[in-house]
Amino acid sequence: MTFTPDARMSLERFWATIERSAEIGVGRPGGLARLTLSDADRQMRDQFVAWCKETGLSVTIDEVGSIFARREGTDPTAEPILIGSHLDTQINGGRYDGIAGVLAGLELCRTLDDLGHVTRRPIEIVNWTNEEGCRYSPPMVASGCFVGAYAPDWVRERIGDDGSRFGDELEKIGYRGEAACGPRPVDAYFELHIEQGPILDAEGYEVGVVTSGFPSHGMLARFSGETAHTGPWPMELRRNALAAGARWLVAVDDLGMEFAGTGGKATAARLAAWPNKPGILSDTADAVCDVRHENPATAKVMAERMRRALHEAAARNGCGVEILDEWLWGGDIFDAGLVSSVRDHAGRLGYRWRDIASQAGHDAYFMARHCPTAMVFTPCRGGITHNNGEHCEPSDFRAGLDVLLHAVVERADRN
Amino acid sequence: MTFTPDARMSLERFWATIERSAEIGVGRPGGLARLTLSDADRQMRDQFVAWCKETGLSVTIDEVGSIFARREGTDPTAEPILIGSHLDTQINGGRYDGIAGVLAGLELCRTLDDLGHVTRRPIEIVNWTNEEGCRYSPPMVASGCFVGAYAPDWVRERIGDDGSRFGDELEKIGYRGEAACGPRPVDAYFELHIEQGPILDAEGYEVGVVTSGFPSHGMLARFSGETAHTGPWPMELRRNALAAGARWLVAVDDLGMEFAGTGGKATAARLAAWPNKPGILSDTADAVCDVRHENPATAKVMAERMRRALHEAAARNGCGVEILDEWLWGGDIFDAGLVSSVRDHAGRLGYRWRDIASQAGHDAYFMARHCPTAMVFTPCRGGITHNNGEHCEPSDFRAGLDVLLHAVVERADRN
Repeated sequence: MTFTPDARMSLERFWATIERSAEIGVGRPGGLARLTLSDADRQMRDQFVAWCKETGLSVTIDEVGSIFARREGTDPTAEPILIGSHLDTQINGGRYDGIAGVLAGLELCRTLDDLGHVTRRPIEIVNWTNEEGCRYSPPMVASGCFVGAYAPDWVRERIGDDGSRFGDELEKIGYRGEAACGPRPVDAYFELHIEQGPILDAEGYEVGVVTSGFPSHGMLARFSGETAHTGPWPMELRRNALAAGARWLVAVDDLGMEFAGTGGKATAARLAAWPNKPGILSDTADAVCDVRHENPATAKVMAERMRRALHEAAARNGCGVEILDEWLWGGDIFDAGLVSSVRDHAGRLGYRWRDIASQAGHDAYFMARHCPTAMVFTPCRGGITHNNGEHCEPSDFRAGLDVLLHAVVERADRN
Repeated sequence: MTFTPDARMSLERFWATIERSAEIGVGRPGGLARLTLSDADRQMRDQFVAWCKETGLSVTIDEVGSIFARREGTDPTAEPILIGSHLDTQINGGRYDGIAGVLAGLELCRTLDDLGHVTRRPIEIVNWTNEEGCRYSPPMVASGCFVGAYAPDWVRERIGDDGSRFGDELEKIGYRGEAACGPRPVDAYFELHIEQGPILDAEGYEVGVVTSGFPSHGMLARFSGETAHTGPWPMELRRNALAAGARWLVAVDDLGMEFAGTGGKATAARLAAWPNKPGILSDTADAVCDVRHENPATAKVMAERMRRALHEAAARNGCGVEILDEWLWGGDIFDAGLVSSVRDHAGRLGYRWRDIASQAGHDAYFMARHCPTAMVFTPCRGGITHNNGEHCEPSDFRAGLDVLLHAVVERADRN
């Protein structure tokens, strides 16, 4: 057997790994709650490493816990192709988000073994630690560290809402590796991911060629007020940080509805006040909001509106406010050559495909700063995700897996 | 020595107990963080019990941890006069709130000992468990249990934000007593408390005769939505419970400002969403708000506005909402005869006094359902409370202590 233009991955074998993953870290019915660096995450990592070793891949763990499983190429000097995503989930997560991308890499290597094909460049499957950010902020911290955006020590110092330290939990599950985490030469990065939106499903496409990421502007802000009694203290003297934070969230939610007609999104994501109790006004409130729009200029207008709303909210409640963190993701970040290759293989293989923009953040966003990067989207029912109702059929991955296979091999074998 | 119309308590001895209390459960500078049923609460209870025993009082603990320290009267068949308040504080609490009322009872008994006076009716000092409600909801739960509003078993099942169970923590600090908690005959209840408002201080009064409590309508509501991804999920399909909760808080805060001109208050007190994380919309948010106004009719209008805002907020964000608890405190609850007595003694002793309404909730509100009840307010600087900046000078208690002494003895000795 050799690698031919009509080569296909094994959907059955891929699906068996998805189903095994769905047994680990079970959450609400049908869903997963496999928080990063938890016991369930360890168990899934152990399973993934076992599969990789069975497949003859050499496994390396880096100092922030990301797992690299390498299939050597014919050219010992060539830089590797990375294929990856994440095995952690949200606390009310689904069975496919991130997981499918990592297991697609495994199935790709198994397929090449079946076909007896050794690519020129090595292939590495990567499972990035803490993509979701649901236990430790920020999300995508390990891919960020890999491209040099965060220092490994800083990553390990992150503290979760449960009071745990990233570095301690990493040691506890036995996944603090020896390999340094930081920029190293990579030829290209591919990530297959469920769309996490309703477009492919609604329009009947089998695969999405990701051309860009919605520019997403986000902020973590801290409102500062003063505790006082909720009864006697006069309204005009109050500095209720909780009310100020709530005001910002409402303004951002309204902004989202205002721009919804052109597909804009604005999210009131988090509000944590202290003491946050009946009987006492809160003197601190941390809030996270973001805005996203496919059009970068519109996204910028939304971001400026979000910023003004922040200061208005603080002023209306007599509070101070400090922006603790700001971020901007997305934009026109993917590699034109790789995107073309994905598009060409989708057409050549006869799948129904369309160009699509990613609305969620992905590890690919960081990787795109470092090397040519492409993403392949697969359909999910109704676009439901970050919810135990997330659902895919095996056939939803048919096109994505095959397109990934051919795009990766083309890249890995080029001169 | 005998009890004469010009008898006075010892301000120095009273103040020494306040200063000792200020050493236990120290919080932010100048403040206390003596949460109910904590180690610090246990230490303060032990100190209080020791003082009571030194004073010859017999100490009884009831099954929800309230402490009763009894000084017998001359008539063995007479019902007791209760004097009480609470030794627990908010997490950013002051040194006087509640504490002064309990220690005033102790000083009253010591003063009667000095004077060799035994009242006809017994006197009991009471320290109510968990008045503040900052660890376990609802507040004033032990006085509520005493008057039959809550069952002891229900009280012990309360779960705090820290996951602890009221009953377990009560056992742990050794204050689950043998005495049943429930209605028993009481002749009258007196509570001395700092005003927790700016009026006495601003207007130069030495003591406030509490005539009523601001009617206070409160609600604990649960918004229900659905988790989804904060990126791709369309605005018009979102059911973000956090945004709905924030919307209700903002509406209530605005309502407070609208009624501020006539002294109304409306408080956005608490918002706890789940998962409350960047990256995922929240599907649950619990929120607590209340409104207060001296005029009962106005308070009722505010309450109705708060209720409509609740349903509007839920509807605007496509969420459901359920009212888990509702309460109404205050009103014209104090005993006319006792209020007259307090007023008469304040005038007779030559103190500058005024009638005043209580804006905060107190254990006296529950006790007023059960027996004739009166409250005596003492000034505090700028009305600052539930804040480590809460401040009183010894002289702020001069008038309140003496008025309490004479009103209690008059009641205790009457035929």
